[in-house]
Amino acid sequence: MIETPYLLFLGDAPDQLAVKVAQGIKDWRPDNAVAQFRMDGCKADLGLADMTLAQAKNAGAKTLVIGVANRGGIISTAWKAVLIEAIEAGFDLASGLHNLLRNEPDLAAAAEKHGRSLHDVRVPSVEYPIASGVKRSGKRVLAVGTDCSVGKMYTALALDAAMKEKGMNSSFRATGQTGILITGEGVPLDAVVADFMAGSIEYLTPDNDDDHWDVIEGQGSLYHLSYSGVTLALIHGGQPDALILCHEPTRKTMRGLPHQALPSLEEVRDTALTLAKVGNPACKVVGISINTQHMSQAEADAYLAEVEERLGLPAVDPFRQGAAKLADALEAL
Amino acid sequence: MIETPYLLFLGDAPDQLAVKVAQGIKDWRPDNAVAQFRMDGCKADLGLADMTLAQAKNAGAKTLVIGVANRGGIISTAWKAVLIEAIEAGFDLASGLHNLLRNEPDLAAAAEKHGRSLHDVRVPSVEYPIASGVKRSGKRVLAVGTDCSVGKMYTALALDAAMKEKGMNSSFRATGQTGILITGEGVPLDAVVADFMAGSIEYLTPDNDDDHWDVIEGQGSLYHLSYSGVTLALIHGGQPDALILCHEPTRKTMRGLPHQALPSLEEVRDTALTLAKVGNPACKVVGISINTQHMSQAEADAYLAEVEERLGLPAVDPFRQGAAKLADALEAL
Repeated sequence: MIETPYLLFLGDAPDQLAVKVAQGIKDWRPDNAVAQFRMDGCKADLGLADMTLAQAKNAGAKTLVIGVANRGGIISTAWKAVLIEAIEAGFDLASGLHNLLRNEPDLAAAAEKHGRSLHDVRVPSVEYPIASGVKRSGKRVLAVGTDCSVGKMYTALALDAAMKEKGMNSSFRATGQTGILITGEGVPLDAVVADFMAGSIEYLTPDNDDDHWDVIEGQGSLYHLSYSGVTLALIHGGQPDALILCHEPTRKTMRGLPHQALPSLEEVRDTALTLAKVGNPACKVVGISINTQHMSQAEADAYLAEVEERLGLPAVDPFRQGAAKLADALEAL
Repeated sequence: MIETPYLLFLGDAPDQLAVKVAQGIKDWRPDNAVAQFRMDGCKADLGLADMTLAQAKNAGAKTLVIGVANRGGIISTAWKAVLIEAIEAGFDLASGLHNLLRNEPDLAAAAEKHGRSLHDVRVPSVEYPIASGVKRSGKRVLAVGTDCSVGKMYTALALDAAMKEKGMNSSFRATGQTGILITGEGVPLDAVVADFMAGSIEYLTPDNDDDHWDVIEGQGSLYHLSYSGVTLALIHGGQPDALILCHEPTRKTMRGLPHQALPSLEEVRDTALTLAKVGNPACKVVGISINTQHMSQAEADAYLAEVEERLGLPAVDPFRQGAAKLADALEAL
């Protein structure tokens, strides 16, 4: 568990896209985002107060989160100077970078010396159990996609927000690096050892109040040849009561697999539901989330109406409309 | 890759069941089994020559394989003395034990000193790629089960033997510890990190001659809540042309999940084929392997006839009958 709130480190980000992790934290957990820290040449701006390390510390920030992608996969000397200064000023560090903080000897030494923690959220920090498959109390909803990167995390975060808005009892459960940094906890599922994947999701979504919903971030797709096993572990470890289908309708081929066409929403519905019922025979598909970013408003409206008609389920683009319709569908379950 | 042939270490095995790894090597790769090494009190016997380390070395053995399960998960002092002597005598060591050889400082030091290798086959020794999903040349058959431990490894080994008997061009591809020790190579899939599972199977079954068959050892089951993700990674990484269904008809509940009933052969056929066709639209289910060890001969015969009739596919118990019928079905494909 990462201590909140955060100072968001934007470094020398070349553009706004490079700080999407920090943007996600600010958008979804604004209470976690005390301020931003920008170095000379930084081209990104979250619209937060710019603070020095000392100012942010006084304002209550506990952890400096690296909210920017690094170039070339190395932590630069310029970054390093700030990160060490932050450790000395009493901050923990958290990062989803491929190159781990703990593998940088000077960062590790500084953290050791000052008694601070380095959180590399790409790497599991827990020894997860083998899944027991036993039914837990409370309810769970899982986002499943036709492909990777179609908006499953966004959908889950928007759904969690819409449920809280309605006064429902819900928790977003992160299963990827960005989600973990946003909420401060979760399971980096793609880095878990095969035998423990489903068990890690049971661990993430334990027994809970009868009216509580875990809103589980999806990963991969049952139809993605590289990552489908991860998706099935989520379905069987999560034992969802409800599934939300996620889709990006303008995409022609699977992400990273240019020879592979996307499945239809109907195929994903049928296959995911068949497999989900192994763990929870009562599981239902309750709604559809469409990422319409590459469509005009008129195209998006027409597509959503067509999908609702064709599948007989509520369909929304949570970015354009919020996820209230999906929250309604869960409440009605 | 483990150097063959082997001296099979049976230690102080309390009974024959404790040496099933060594038994598998002797049964399936007799050329790999030069001799057995038994300590005082060993209650198991493979019917191989008993040799000292020096005798086995002179007979050509390269690696001492721990073919026995250890009690309590620790490598005992008595074992340790033999293992160090073996290293000093020029043997590599290979083991599928949970407690790793490399984590024993005295074994590691002896191996270092004498330039020998310690093979812990539970742990991947390769950095596997992310799966590309690209179609490879050559053909592949995968054993998929209604449950764990229903005979998938046995079926694959028997099928490989039957294919070679017919003059077909085939390779058994191990995906678990015992299979790896039997053949000297393979992928310990249950220990691979989630993102690389499917890629490890692509690595295991690369491009090959058009008439060559990889006979891939199955793992888990699409219907096993703890391990289903591993099974799906095998299906999508292996891109099989043919599936063999494996089943143990007297089992009532899934292994380790006493609340979970087994799926029917029809369910596994339909779900596995739907998912396999994502990677290889030409994939077919070609036969059924039934583990009838808990049935009389008459019960087994009746059950196999009933299954053949019901599913319209050849069905055998490879332990009782060999797998020639399954090899015929593959040849006819």
